Amino acid sequence: MAPNKAWTLASFPAAAVREDNFRLVESPVPVPEAGEVLVKNLWLSLDPYMRGRISQQKSYAKGVEIGDVMTGETAGEVLHSKHPDFAPGDTVTAPSGWQLYGCMSGELLTKVDATRVPLSYYLGCLGMPGRTAWFGLKDIGAPKSGETVAVSAASGAVGSVVGQLAKLWGCRAVGIAGGSAKCDYVAKDLGFDACIDYKAGNLYRDLREACPKGVDVYFDNVGGETLDTLLRVMNPFSRIVICGRISTFDQAAPYGLKNSGSILVNRIKLQGMIVFDWQARYAEANRALLDLVIAGKLKTRESVIEGIENAPRGFIGLLKGENFGKQLVKLG
Amino acid sequence: MAPNKAWTLASFPAAAVREDNFRLVESPVPVPEAGEVLVKNLWLSLDPYMRGRISQQKSYAKGVEIGDVMTGETAGEVLHSKHPDFAPGDTVTAPSGWQLYGCMSGELLTKVDATRVPLSYYLGCLGMPGRTAWFGLKDIGAPKSGETVAVSAASGAVGSVVGQLAKLWGCRAVGIAGGSAKCDYVAKDLGFDACIDYKAGNLYRDLREACPKGVDVYFDNVGGETLDTLLRVMNPFSRIVICGRISTFDQAAPYGLKNSGSILVNRIKLQGMIVFDWQARYAEANRALLDLVIAGKLKTRESVIEGIENAPRGFIGLLKGENFGKQLVKLG
Repeated sequence: MAPNKAWTLASFPAAAVREDNFRLVESPVPVPEAGEVLVKNLWLSLDPYMRGRISQQKSYAKGVEIGDVMTGETAGEVLHSKHPDFAPGDTVTAPSGWQLYGCMSGELLTKVDATRVPLSYYLGCLGMPGRTAWFGLKDIGAPKSGETVAVSAASGAVGSVVGQLAKLWGCRAVGIAGGSAKCDYVAKDLGFDACIDYKAGNLYRDLREACPKGVDVYFDNVGGETLDTLLRVMNPFSRIVICGRISTFDQAAPYGLKNSGSILVNRIKLQGMIVFDWQARYAEANRALLDLVIAGKLKTRESVIEGIENAPRGFIGLLKGENFGKQLVKLG
Repeated sequence: MAPNKAWTLASFPAAAVREDNFRLVESPVPVPEAGEVLVKNLWLSLDPYMRGRISQQKSYAKGVEIGDVMTGETAGEVLHSKHPDFAPGDTVTAPSGWQLYGCMSGELLTKVDATRVPLSYYLGCLGMPGRTAWFGLKDIGAPKSGETVAVSAASGAVGSVVGQLAKLWGCRAVGIAGGSAKCDYVAKDLGFDACIDYKAGNLYRDLREACPKGVDVYFDNVGGETLDTLLRVMNPFSRIVICGRISTFDQAAPYGLKNSGSILVNRIKLQGMIVFDWQARYAEANRALLDLVIAGKLKTRESVIEGIENAPRGFIGLLKGENFGKQLVKLG
């Protein structure tokens, strides 16, 4: 059998992530012990949260150390099982990291049904990003029919689900994305009511125009200046889901939010969220999202890069917003 | 009868409020019409929120216009009533503004019992500031026994109640105030576990020391740099009550909050509050706070300035933090 290949962390990024922050390491394919399962990874998910894991700042989860395999979720096929719940050929998602094979306790795997939807969807709209959109919007944003929901990184794995759910729940959905191609996709293919190209440089004016009744829920995937601008258009008693901050990672100095006075004046509720905190309720989101995908009511788009060798390049592109939809690495 | 005297707004403050932003106007004492009541004001409340009312920035309530009587709550005695619910001698609180007499619909008055507690308390710990502390802490901060509650402007009308309630509810209460006299009062007389003098210039270090288990609830009365520093010591799943921003009013440029990343990392909930939104539940707070005062479990301190002529001076002192406890003007 060809050897396993794994990306390990070679150095912490000084500012922007570079390919030489990672090192590709070969090793024999592991052999599962009692209770373990060997998974051949077919898809690797690349997600913005990974940037926080290789920062030396405190975050909500333990960071990756130098020499560790890069953290990440994969979807794949069971090759060999010493766990009673899994058999060769089963399709699963697994916290394998950036590598060709995952070998771990069966307790860490999730069996998924890839007969009705593509396996890769379980890393996107039916996986962590989809569940993040579901619980963040439903529990924190809590939009009522007729309200306006704005979401940044709207063409991305989380944002695209947020806006489509908002539409399904009777809201006006307004996306924010970078560039006209993404905005066209969000408005025309995903069915948002509007999508603003923040790179056009008129975010405040464009928000005022796209949200004539103000914004009741803002689902924030980017932080920084975009969040600050949204604070100027939020309605009384509005909610902000603080979900991501991809705009802030490589800044030398943190962005200073100037419009926090709006929180008091408008009695805004802001809440930070990490989807792990909803783990006990994942089944609810999984079932609802799968039903919507099968019914053709939840669309998704994937940005696929081929080969484990290209994982760092795909990740760097993701951080720069070069992906268009859910970023995946095709391994098998 | 001596004439009424009323402070009107002469000009909007360009930066810090000055005495010449106000003009003292004399007029005949008004005569109530059907349904109205004439109140002789004995106490005028001075509160930080008034600064927002004479700013030309958008706020949550209509601002004072040039020539209007300055907005404000008073406590006084009914002189003449053409409303069936009120009789001469009744003690009431009223939205009279900065003047010696209030004449308004009886519907706007609140009858209060000044036989068991001083009348002035209904402008402080038993009035708007007390209710703000009650609902903000109970409903938004929602501290659990054993948690740490921090509050800024801790010797003030709202902050002093917040910390005492926190102690009564089994929490560690840590105040933040300006100067050692206020800090001594907060820690020794009010019984907080600790009080930090922010003017000493070591707020972050002092918070770390006073809050060894971090902060679970921060009741923010000041905004700006203090709020930013608190974001660095908040615990996972902590709550921030955004109640006031007295530190930010006179700044030429708004303070930029740099530590908003903590909201995501720690899943913090921040919520702006204005006590008016709890109007339907005022009776709950009024009763609970009165019981605590009568039982000697809720202490208060008043900073009294004498004479309507001195209202602007008292207000300017309040904005500079020169008051020590609830700021009142004694009118009668």
